[in-house]
Amino acid sequence: MKKKLILISNDDGINANGIKALVQAVKHLGDIIVVAPESARSAMSNAITTRKPMRANFISENENVKIYTCSGTPTDCNKIALNQILNRTPDIVLSGINHGSNSSISVLYSGTMGICLDACVYGIPAVGFSLCSFDHKEDLSEAMKIAEKITALILEKGLPHGTCLNVNIPKGKVNGIKICRQTKGHWQEIFLTGKDPSGKDFYWLGGDFINDEKGIEGTDETAIENGFASVVPIKIDMTDYDLLNELNSWNID
Amino acid sequence: MKKKLILISNDDGINANGIKALVQAVKHLGDIIVVAPESARSAMSNAITTRKPMRANFISENENVKIYTCSGTPTDCNKIALNQILNRTPDIVLSGINHGSNSSISVLYSGTMGICLDACVYGIPAVGFSLCSFDHKEDLSEAMKIAEKITALILEKGLPHGTCLNVNIPKGKVNGIKICRQTKGHWQEIFLTGKDPSGKDFYWLGGDFINDEKGIEGTDETAIENGFASVVPIKIDMTDYDLLNELNSWNID
Repeated sequence: MKKKLILISNDDGINANGIKALVQAVKHLGDIIVVAPESARSAMSNAITTRKPMRANFISENENVKIYTCSGTPTDCNKIALNQILNRTPDIVLSGINHGSNSSISVLYSGTMGICLDACVYGIPAVGFSLCSFDHKEDLSEAMKIAEKITALILEKGLPHGTCLNVNIPKGKVNGIKICRQTKGHWQEIFLTGKDPSGKDFYWLGGDFINDEKGIEGTDETAIENGFASVVPIKIDMTDYDLLNELNSWNID
Repeated sequence: MKKKLILISNDDGINANGIKALVQAVKHLGDIIVVAPESARSAMSNAITTRKPMRANFISENENVKIYTCSGTPTDCNKIALNQILNRTPDIVLSGINHGSNSSISVLYSGTMGICLDACVYGIPAVGFSLCSFDHKEDLSEAMKIAEKITALILEKGLPHGTCLNVNIPKGKVNGIKICRQTKGHWQEIFLTGKDPSGKDFYWLGGDFINDEKGIEGTDETAIENGFASVVPIKIDMTDYDLLNELNSWNID
């Protein structure tokens, strides 16, 4: 049987501990090609670079792990890997381990999940892993075990065309894995505002996540709060079929 | 009755003909606040700027139209408008008129639709309008009529929390409006490659859209091909509920 080919990327950049941990966790499962951003590209969603050229650089090869960087966005990494670096379609695309949660509606803004959604468009099974801690020195050992387990499972079972997995792992001891739906929530934006050294106003975007379904079972946020890793199947067909039927009764035309 | 407040943005930037046309098309329906990127920010998806501060500039006020620019992404424009510029929640967020199609899976990469998805997170009705032509000088009069009609309708009827509309308008004469689902398709990437003046390799991302459901009724691509404007209701809950049920039978944990 042909050895599996595993493409790995992230949005924290090539030097993040999370992507190094992910490579270690799954490198016995196949040949690894890493194509990751040169530096941090958080909250880039599915952004792609079309208005200027990109760079790709070969960094190293060691045993079955080959590493490249790309100057573009996380999704650019996936596209340049599939089109310019790999000589065959990977069996799976993995993203992460992200430093920080991508649960609930963060999936819309996440570069980690952008990579997976882009892989979905091409029918490649994809899984994004995020550790719910922004501390880049957080212990990754539990997240690595979960990443290994889920990667092995998806390499065996596959995923339907157009659907990927969004896996979020609480910090500390993990009680198990729960299959969940995306929690309804929002970000409460907090802009740091002030005057720059030249006296001109600036606005610096930050904020806190607000869970609008606090304590509701079956959601990814509740699973994580209870110490479980959450697995949400995410699909690229964003059509709201319920509203589609209703709109037809409006006689818009 | 309080006059309606309409927030307008886009991803082609403040100077694009499309956003000027959209303002003209709907300005009799309420007070208009435009907060648009300083210049083109296509294919930015839901990217947000968190690693550096942003700028916002007041440009002009004329009758009931107030115009600002923002140095950030399209989604940044929405966030800075809602948090720093407007003194009440707008009744609707409009995006466009984009120069180029955002049908099918382009919704994943589109800055135009990123604005609408972000508005959805806050429960604000939102509609993105795109003209299926990259020619910035294309006639916008049919698109303007459709934008006016749909905006008036949504101001009256509203939209469910978490769902927005993706409206794509063919160029030339429009035969009517069809409610559609998102077509399955993909982009066939074509990288322009070469050496820069210093002899270093570059990769410039381009490509062609491939419709994987050619001629299938009910899809947005088929509607557009037949000369109809397509309206796809798009929801931010990306959970694949069918796979969720199946994954539960896998006994992952």
